[in-house]
Amino acid sequence: MSTNTLIIGAGGVGNVVAFKCAMNAETFGNITLASRTVSKCDEIAANVKEKTGVQIATAQVDADSVPELVDLIMKTDADIVINVALPYQDLTIMDACTQCGVDYLDTANYEHPDEAKFEYKEQWARNEQFKKADIMGLLGSGFDPGATNVFCAYAQKHYFDEIHTIDILDCNAGDHGYPFATNFNPEINLREVSAKGRYWEEGKWIETEPMEIMQVWDYPEVGPKDSYLLYHEEMESLVKHIKGLKRIRFFMTFGASYLKHMEVLQNVGMLGIEPVEHKGQQIIPIEFLKTLLPDPASLGPRTKGKTNIGIFAKGIKDGKPQTIYIYQVKDHEECYAEVMSQGVSYTTGVPAMIGAKLMLEGVWQGTGVFNMEEMDPDPFMEEMMTQGLPWQVLELGAHEDLRVDD
Amino acid sequence: MSTNTLIIGAGGVGNVVAFKCAMNAETFGNITLASRTVSKCDEIAANVKEKTGVQIATAQVDADSVPELVDLIMKTDADIVINVALPYQDLTIMDACTQCGVDYLDTANYEHPDEAKFEYKEQWARNEQFKKADIMGLLGSGFDPGATNVFCAYAQKHYFDEIHTIDILDCNAGDHGYPFATNFNPEINLREVSAKGRYWEEGKWIETEPMEIMQVWDYPEVGPKDSYLLYHEEMESLVKHIKGLKRIRFFMTFGASYLKHMEVLQNVGMLGIEPVEHKGQQIIPIEFLKTLLPDPASLGPRTKGKTNIGIFAKGIKDGKPQTIYIYQVKDHEECYAEVMSQGVSYTTGVPAMIGAKLMLEGVWQGTGVFNMEEMDPDPFMEEMMTQGLPWQVLELGAHEDLRVDD
Repeated sequence: MSTNTLIIGAGGVGNVVAFKCAMNAETFGNITLASRTVSKCDEIAANVKEKTGVQIATAQVDADSVPELVDLIMKTDADIVINVALPYQDLTIMDACTQCGVDYLDTANYEHPDEAKFEYKEQWARNEQFKKADIMGLLGSGFDPGATNVFCAYAQKHYFDEIHTIDILDCNAGDHGYPFATNFNPEINLREVSAKGRYWEEGKWIETEPMEIMQVWDYPEVGPKDSYLLYHEEMESLVKHIKGLKRIRFFMTFGASYLKHMEVLQNVGMLGIEPVEHKGQQIIPIEFLKTLLPDPASLGPRTKGKTNIGIFAKGIKDGKPQTIYIYQVKDHEECYAEVMSQGVSYTTGVPAMIGAKLMLEGVWQGTGVFNMEEMDPDPFMEEMMTQGLPWQVLELGAHEDLRVDD
Repeated sequence: MSTNTLIIGAGGVGNVVAFKCAMNAETFGNITLASRTVSKCDEIAANVKEKTGVQIATAQVDADSVPELVDLIMKTDADIVINVALPYQDLTIMDACTQCGVDYLDTANYEHPDEAKFEYKEQWARNEQFKKADIMGLLGSGFDPGATNVFCAYAQKHYFDEIHTIDILDCNAGDHGYPFATNFNPEINLREVSAKGRYWEEGKWIETEPMEIMQVWDYPEVGPKDSYLLYHEEMESLVKHIKGLKRIRFFMTFGASYLKHMEVLQNVGMLGIEPVEHKGQQIIPIEFLKTLLPDPASLGPRTKGKTNIGIFAKGIKDGKPQTIYIYQVKDHEECYAEVMSQGVSYTTGVPAMIGAKLMLEGVWQGTGVFNMEEMDPDPFMEEMMTQGLPWQVLELGAHEDLRVDD
């Protein structure tokens, strides 16, 4: 009996997942790529066919509609649903999987369309229904969340008796050559930059002003970069699952020019999401900005430079202080040459494929919903090495640090 | 026989000219304010009546149409036309004045609507027709050009045997409290910032990159400000009329935040003047930006701080080196309290009224077209003292300088 895989979402990440599943067709079997706009799926399918020789099917679906999703899952007789649609659609797809008794995987936690709130509450609340349906849900199997959670579990398993502090470090040093352009919706970019920061210390969440804490970290193969403390969703599950933790923070790099553009665009009202009356027409400023900016799809072939995402952990091993840095460096142009997407989509899509592969192979199993660090990290780390995301571990000793003193 | 004055243009400067002419009604007689949109004239007339008790008339006119202008000039039996409309309309208004045999004054040189080119060529070319019509045309009677040209003539008359170098220094230290807003059309602002700089030395024009030359000057009552070398139109006539000149430059202050906003808006295409297709509609980006930005009219009551515009001249007097700084400082809030306009409109409108007053009184007379420095500066300087633009002269000796060494 052959395997059937259903991928929902045909954006940049959907493109990478489709490519990588096709490149692992012995595991994924018959692959269907579905989205609201079937022409985007058809285009990806044609590229996948040309580059890998594998023919994948395509389908149209409204991922906000549970009945449409159920129909599609039944029709494709899917063994697993890989959700790389919008984060607004996690819950409908989870509910459709429950009804059909099919395993589920996503890469980002549920967001309510009308509020900037990132939390696992609503997905964790579906644990019981997943157990009753005897299915597995793997939450947040992208890079961060995803690979970063696995890095933490791997550090805990092999390098520490106790991890005391973790800094998740997300650096994108890609350069698309435009003065300003966004890889994805500028509104989501803005939410990150303008939201209050938050980190966890000694059992409590501590809030900071937006972009209040900046540190310079020296990223291997990239160099020193301004890194800003943000809230990021994987911390919510890691503080539950990494025992003995005293502090966890998340840092993301932003260039001065990027921040300048965001600030000015916000100042003049170009990031507004409410319609503005202009010469008798209703114009939503951020939509008009999207029209002016380069098409994100056009960035892929012209983005140069590298991403470097990793975790920096300190703690105790055999009674002695220990410092470990686990990181993965990816070159944007290499990604584009392989799967016609730049590094940001690549580093999210490949871990989604790996998570699904381990589930289909029965290497990772369970009933209910799980975060990545609850699974054995070793098989995931092995797959990363051969599927395009090779990583490294640096043992830095007690006092060495990657952080550049200002 | 009573005097009749026709003011064309009902923007911020037109408002100031209407107020100040009404406050000098013994000279200006029956005042008519005309523009394309008569409701703007009516609003100004109502404010003038309320504040000064003087009733001025209003009229509608398309200043691009010579026949319409001729009709209006004849109907009002004007003795002088004060042109504070758009610089695109200088030539039509000059030609209408020639046909009617009526004196003419403006505040800014002719600009072709489709190119950023500031030059007196087309206005100077009308010298013969003005002579034949036995009328006087006074060109550039604003502040800069205008008062700055008179400052140069005054320095030459009273303080120098030879002026060797002139720096015209234009500082607006007003703060409207918005992160970004423009006093007038942002497109004209942009032209200034993005155009190549130009100054004159030893008989030649020397071009610089846009904003290439920045100097910090210490403006009395304001403080040190970053000042950028720009081309500005009064230099074109001053190099002809100030004998012995070796160099003339023009500097204008721009704040770092203003420049940052202009740069970003240009980068993302928001200053574009060509229509962009957006959701089936044609949108001109700079027009949409104007819709988003605060209405320039709303800046008047909330602008605080001062303007300081002057000339810094070096040369020889009685065989000894001489350095003179003549400047005028104006407070934005004081302007608004007096005539309901902030300082930028005020400092342009008052010299227009003074120039017209001297012409009507026969103090300044001639046939043909004239730049300000060709007239005796003394009566103009006297009027400034009592009409709201008091000025000061600093004799700085040979070596003192206002420029801050970087």
